[in-house]
Parts: sequence; structure tokens; C-alpha cells
Amino acid sequence: PVVPRGRGCAGSREVVPTCERYAVRRLPFARLADGDVAFFERLMPGRVVTSEEEVKPFNVDWLKSVRGCSQLVLKPQTTAEVSQVLRYCHERNLAVNPQGGNTGLVGGSVPVFDEIILSTALMNQIISFDKVSGILVCQAGCVLERLNEYLEEQGFIMPLDLGAKGSCHIGGNVATNAGGLRLLRYGSLRGTVLGLEVVLADGSALDCLTSLRKDNTGYDLKQLFIGSEGTLGVITAVSILCPQKPKAVNLAFLGCQSFAKVLETFTTCRAMLGEILSAYEFMDEKCMELVERHLKLSSPVSDSPFYVLIETSGSNSTHDEEKLNNFLEQAMASGLVTDGTVATDDKKIKVLWGLRERITEALTHEGYVYKYDISLPVGRLYDLVTDMRARLGQSAKNVVGYGHLGDGNLHLNITAESYSHSLLDAIEPFVYEWTARCSGSISAEHGLGFKKKQFIEYSKPREAVVLMQRFKAMLDPKGILNPYKTLPSAP
Amino acid sequence: PVVPRGRGCAGSREVVPTCERYAVRRLPFARLADGDVAFFERLMPGRVVTSEEEVKPFNVDWLKSVRGCSQLVLKPQTTAEVSQVLRYCHERNLAVNPQGGNTGLVGGSVPVFDEIILSTALMNQIISFDKVSGILVCQAGCVLERLNEYLEEQGFIMPLDLGAKGSCHIGGNVATNAGGLRLLRYGSLRGTVLGLEVVLADGSALDCLTSLRKDNTGYDLKQLFIGSEGTLGVITAVSILCPQKPKAVNLAFLGCQSFAKVLETFTTCRAMLGEILSAYEFMDEKCMELVERHLKLSSPVSDSPFYVLIETSGSNSTHDEEKLNNFLEQAMASGLVTDGTVATDDKKIKVLWGLRERITEALTHEGYVYKYDISLPVGRLYDLVTDMRARLGQSAKNVVGYGHLGDGNLHLNITAESYSHSLLDAIEPFVYEWTARCSGSISAEHGLGFKKKQFIEYSKPREAVVLMQRFKAMLDPKGILNPYKTLPSAP
Repeated sequence: PVVPRGRGCAGSREVVPTCERYAVRRLPFARLADGDVAFFERLMPGRVVTSEEEVKPFNVDWLKSVRGCSQLVLKPQTTAEVSQVLRYCHERNLAVNPQGGNTGLVGGSVPVFDEIILSTALMNQIISFDKVSGILVCQAGCVLERLNEYLEEQGFIMPLDLGAKGSCHIGGNVATNAGGLRLLRYGSLRGTVLGLEVVLADGSALDCLTSLRKDNTGYDLKQLFIGSEGTLGVITAVSILCPQKPKAVNLAFLGCQSFAKVLETFTTCRAMLGEILSAYEFMDEKCMELVERHLKLSSPVSDSPFYVLIETSGSNSTHDEEKLNNFLEQAMASGLVTDGTVATDDKKIKVLWGLRERITEALTHEGYVYKYDISLPVGRLYDLVTDMRARLGQSAKNVVGYGHLGDGNLHLNITAESYSHSLLDAIEPFVYEWTARCSGSISAEHGLGFKKKQFIEYSKPREAVVLMQRFKAMLDPKGILNPYKTLPSAP
Repeated sequence: PVVPRGRGCAGSREVVPTCERYAVRRLPFARLADGDVAFFERLMPGRVVTSEEEVKPFNVDWLKSVRGCSQLVLKPQTTAEVSQVLRYCHERNLAVNPQGGNTGLVGGSVPVFDEIILSTALMNQIISFDKVSGILVCQAGCVLERLNEYLEEQGFIMPLDLGAKGSCHIGGNVATNAGGLRLLRYGSLRGTVLGLEVVLADGSALDCLTSLRKDNTGYDLKQLFIGSEGTLGVITAVSILCPQKPKAVNLAFLGCQSFAKVLETFTTCRAMLGEILSAYEFMDEKCMELVERHLKLSSPVSDSPFYVLIETSGSNSTHDEEKLNNFLEQAMASGLVTDGTVATDDKKIKVLWGLRERITEALTHEGYVYKYDISLPVGRLYDLVTDMRARLGQSAKNVVGYGHLGDGNLHLNITAESYSHSLLDAIEPFVYEWTARCSGSISAEHGLGFKKKQFIEYSKPREAVVLMQRFKAMLDPKGILNPYKTLPSAP
């Protein structure tokens, strides 16, 4: 998505540096010296960024909620260059912040202090695509949407899709185990990613870039790097299994009069649409109001407290339409759904998806956004929004809920004119305690990054966290890779 | 499957002890003392097996190809008991062989020397099943087929299915990352397993038994245990996402006149059946001959060098039959398929599946079986069988190929009257070198266990193996968990 203009956090154009706002202490890494920059210039001439103005966008996250003060961005083109950079940084004890499209929502993609930014922006080559198996191998810096376009020409699609597709890199998607809009149908990256090439903290390259659907020779090392947010290694290339492009895509955008009906509609459509169901998304009326007001989008369905977006993807348009129509008839007849529209042509489908996909963007126009990305038993999903709204009353501008209902994934967003410590205190740890009571996850798909790492124990037992810390210490003994992220700092 | 009667390996009822046949050296673990048995008797009275006759079946694998000489089988019922057993063994430096249904094919499930056998046979309780989400939580010793029957009553199925379903335990399935017959449709256990409870080598329990479709809070520790064959921890409980039971299942059993036509039939059916395709299996005529001869099964399709089994699973029988019929018409008209039969009722479907599923069993009647489970680019899949047949000539009784073509997974089996070192030398390392030249995997789904561990470097780079060894050393510093398995012994 386009980075929103205007107000940053704290009501000003300038983002408060993370280390000030959160009172973090810098770890004893070496500081960048002239000799270091000279080394990198020799290694990758013309791809070393040091001007303050050019480095700036790499220091600030997409939400303009956190800001680092790195003085150096490196743009390697090859795995060998990434290896050399890390070997040098490891030797010199320089901290490194790997960065893909910088679209993360938890402050994982920008430095906290002066970490060197290692950008995958120029690692954007497709290495191979096999039309028989549907296996794509590419460098980590390929933009998701570009990959999807490339595949569509060959009759395939990427197994994941998300709002940030125009900017996010596949390496970042894998490093954060991105979920998104197609997970319901094609499963998580843990199943679709077949191989990875990773450079470890000491610069050694680990080649697990196999293109096999099945391989049980030893431990599946690549899994450790999926979702590790750049703290265990830098992903340089990805091998991924891509589904065939569906011959028919249909979309239904529906209005429901209560969340109970949203749930019942889900159960009904799952049974009636079966294998062609490819997305079940929901949003509340407040979300709709914001996309209409700030982005000037207009919805063909209105006056409902909840909206549901159902997508089908299949191989036979006649069959799919028949299934969808049967379902809609039943949903209307039984009063689950009060209003709705169906789209079968690409353009209308894109427009309807926009209503759901651009909520994140619309929210940024409201001021500061407190973002929560929660997994819950699906029946309890909206209770958290209701409870939070009651708890915050007038102190929040908006409390909205939307998300991937089919995956039990709620995006709870709270907005205010500007960042406020007291509002944050009213939200946290309440939101985490509420989630933990339901055995939910405090981060379904966004990861922990910088902002959520201290809360990991609401979703993971202490022994698991200790084990994670041992893995980190083993793979990155000096702790130079994306420090201050994912795992809690020592108490 | 039922353990075959009659001839074991080497043409006799007695299996040669593994340590003798393979000249392995016992590692310096402690030896079982009377005091140890007394301790276990107090811990789990009546569930400690020491009689030689009763221990025997736990010492020999299903293929009767490897044999350990354990003197003790323990049958815990709870995770707490597993913890206490491992804490004690860790303290005493006693080696432990975790065992599920003992249906493994690479010698991973039985001891090599006198390791204590820790059986999950009595850990067979279903903990919970949620009909809304389809998430099943159960103990590790539940038999796969029992779980599937339980789920079918509630309108769901297990996401995996394999020939050994009547005996194998879900814990063993996860520990070996079992693939099987439904992987094409429902993906691997790395995507469907949502949570695990594991007891580590020192007896500490790791509770990652979450029931959430999405959870990105820290590293995904459970992945390390999936496919680690009991060498990193003992899986005690599993949380798994189960698909809805398909309303319609159809099966087509077809004859093809060449492997090229098998491949083209696959491409055609994938395009025409799309989302309802749930299995694409193949077998050569030699396989058919063996199941007919040894198991007295009869095939409705005959006189073809290759047979293909195609299964569809969907939510609408009319639509599914129409898709299948369209595909069959095209396949017949274009000469891809020369003969075939279709089944829609359960009984006939089971009979046809039997032809494919019971090949393993039929092969055991032939004498000693050299088993290879290879991932290859699908176009090269049968070349390995042809090359091997030419290479071995009269020295092998049979060289057959079958498997999960849709996943690029070949089961290459070679039989001889009895085990012979010289035949083995003619097969290995040829088969591994051939596979490595195609960037294949020397174990697609069976794992490495005892028999394949020395060959890991044909499919994994040395740095990856070294890293695996570091994980092993970190999680099991004394090496007591399933020693002599998965990772190569020091040169």
C-alpha cells in the first residue's frame, strides 16, 4: 500500500525515536566507523546508502509508529554478498537489521538504534519456475504482487495474498510467516515453502533450497527460519509450491445483522461451498464507515452491523456458481443474510476486495492506531471487540474489529488522535490477559517484532521461551541479527 | 497391516540382530540394572514388560529386517509418567527407544542394542474435538484408523491416510512426518499439526499443544520435533486440523500403456479435476502381479504396463461425477488411458484402494525387500526403476515401482530370496547417487531411521547436517533418545 501522508504518530510529522519512547537500552555492539563504510563500498559499489535523507525511509515503519537511527543501508544483489556482509559484521560485532518491503506492523522491520539495514530490495530475481510441479524458486527480495503476476501468466498463483502485496517481499513474508487472505484455502507457509536459502549470523550460507514436495532427510531446518523475523538468519532465496490459477473466481459481499449470524453464515457456507471456499473475511460497520470516509470507496451493501466477504475459487464456473447460488438462497431464506451482492468479473471483484483490504490504510487516517492481531476460538472472536469498546468508552476514538474469520483471526484496532501512554495502559495488558484466558494467540500473523516481544508469555509457556532463547544463542551467539526483536529482553 | 507370517529376513524365522549384521558399536550408555526395573515397577505397576517373549515383538520391525535386544518395554499412560521415565533415564544415562505402532520401514522404531523401549500403546485417549474448527487434540498413542473412525462420525476425517493406518500411532506419524495418500489434497503434517506436547531428553515437558490455526508468537518449536524420529524428544500429545468429511468420493482405476501416458494423464486430470483431486497414485504391472498372486486380490483392469488410481473428494456428488466423467472421456478419447473402472460406492472404493495400499504387504511375501522411498522431479520418476532393473539383471527377483506420483514420490522396491551383501552393494550407493544427480530426496516420507542415516549427505549439504547435530547435542546432550538413528554417526 501507499505510505499514508500527513500525520505520523504523536500528532506530528516526525516520529519519536523508538529508543526514546520505549526507554530501551542499546546493547554493546560496535559503532559504525568510516572503515566499515569503506569496506562495504568496496564490496558493493553504488549500493551503499549513507545520506541521511535516503536512509530515512528505511528507519521508519509503514505505520510511522517506530523509528530507528541507522546511518547505513546496504543493498546486496547476491547471497555471496549477504554472506560477506554478515561475516564482516559478525567479526566487527556490528548489529544488523534485515529489511524486506518494510510493511511489518509490529516494528520488526526497522532498526531500534543504529543497526545496519540490510535491504533485500535488489535481490529480486526469479530463479526458476516449473510448470509441471508448480514450484517457484526466487530471491528473497521479489515483491509478492510481481511474483503473482508472473505466475498468473503461466496459469498459477502465489499461495498467499495480503493487503501489502504491492510492497512486501517474499523473503519478509517467509521471515514473518505471513498469513493473509488465502490461508484458509492454501494453508500456511509452513506447508507451501519447500526450501530456503539462509545466511547465518556468522556469514555462513545454509542451502536448503530444495524443490521437492516431500523430503524427510533429517530435521527440517528451514522451519526454524520461517517466522523468526530475521533474528536467526537472513533468508536470501525461497522455493515455494504454487497452486494452479483457479478458472473461476466468485465473490459474495453480504450484510449480517449480528455477529452470531456471521458465525452461522460461516458454518453454512463451509458445508455448502466445501472445497471451493477460498476466503471468509468479516468487518464491522465502523470499518466500513472508515473506508468510505477516508478512501472514498462506496459499498454496494449497507446498513448492516457486520459485513462478510466470501470468495470461491474453482475449476468449473458453472459448478461454482451453482454452489454459490444454492448457498446464497439458503442464507437469504433463513435470514442469516439481509443484503448482498455477487461478483464474477475481475473488476468488480477487485473493488469489493478493496473494501476489506484497505481497512488498514483507512485506519491510519484516524491518527495513531493501536493494532492487535489475535487468534481466538472463532465463537469468541468479536467478544473482545465489544469488551474493549465498553472498557475504553470515550478515551478511544474508534474500536474496530475485522479479519480472517475462517482462520479464527481477529484484527482489533483502536485509534486515537495521538499516541497516549494512558490509553495504552488501558488496553494492555487487558487485551493480552483476555486473549490468554481463551488460550488464544496474541499474534496470529503479524509476529512479535519490537512491539509485542515482551508479551510472548501470554501465549507461550516459559520453558518454550527459554528454549527459543537457547536457539537464538546457538545460531547467533553475539546477538547481532535484528536485536531487540521477537524474544523478550532479560528482565 | 497384519504382520506377515512366515519367512523373516535371511530366509529364516529369526532376524539377525542389527548390531551383528551392520557391525555397529554400542555407545557407552549404562546397562539396565535390577534397581532400574524396580524403579519403573513402582512408577507404573503392571505396565513394565520384562519377559523375553513379550518384549520380542517390540524388538523386531514390521519388515523383520532389523532386530534389537532390549530387555524392557515401558507403557506409560500419561505425560507425567513419560517425564519421570526420561528424567530417570537421563540421570542414569540409559538409552531410550520411543515406539509407536512399530510400522516404520527404515529401522527407526526398534532398538539397535538394549535401549529401553518406551511404547505409546497405552497413551490412546482423545482429549478434545471441536466441531466448529475441526481441531482434534489427542494423546500420541491413538491409532490413526481409530481417530479417523471417530472423526467420520462427526463429519470430519484425518488429514492423512496410509497403508499402516490400522496399527500406526498418530505420535509416530508426526515424529516421522508421515506423508501418505492424502498429502496431495490436504498438505503435509507441517501445515496440519497445530500443536504438540513433547517430553525432552531430560524429562522436562514442553507444552506447545495449542489449538489455533494461526500463531506467530516466537519460533515454531514444534516443527523441530515433526520428522525428528524421536531423537529430539518424545511426542506425547498432538493437536491437528482435520478437514470436513467429503460428501462425495469417487475413484477411477485406469490402465496406461506407458509411463509417459501416466504423466500426461496426471497433467490432464489435475487441470480438469482441480480442487476435487485427492489422490493420484501409480503402480507398475509387476506390483499388480504380486498383489494378485500373494494376496489373491483381483483387478478389474488388466494387461497394462502401468495402473493409475485417481480419487476425487468433494462436496457435491453431481458436480464431482460430471468433472470425473469429462476427464475420463477426454483421457479415453485421446488414448491416454486404454482401460478403466470407476467406483462411487464405499465397498468398491475400498477394494480398489486395496490393490494399491497392499503392495508393501505383497512384497514381503517375496523374501527380503530392499526399500527405497525417493522424491524426484515427476518426469524422471520411473527412469530410476528402469535403470535399476537394467543394472541388477538376474541378481534381483523383482524391481518394482509405485507411489504417490502427484507428490513426486516413488517407492522403488527390490526383492531377493534372502538378504545379500553383494546385492546391496549393487543397489547402494548407485540409487543414492542417481537421486542426488536429479536433486531428489533419498527419503521422501519414510525418514532415515537406522537404515538410511549414513546417506543423508546425498540430500543435504554438510553444513545442514552439522547444524542438525548441534540441535541434537543441545536438546539431548547425552544422546539417550533413539540413538544410532537419523543423523550419521561420526566417521
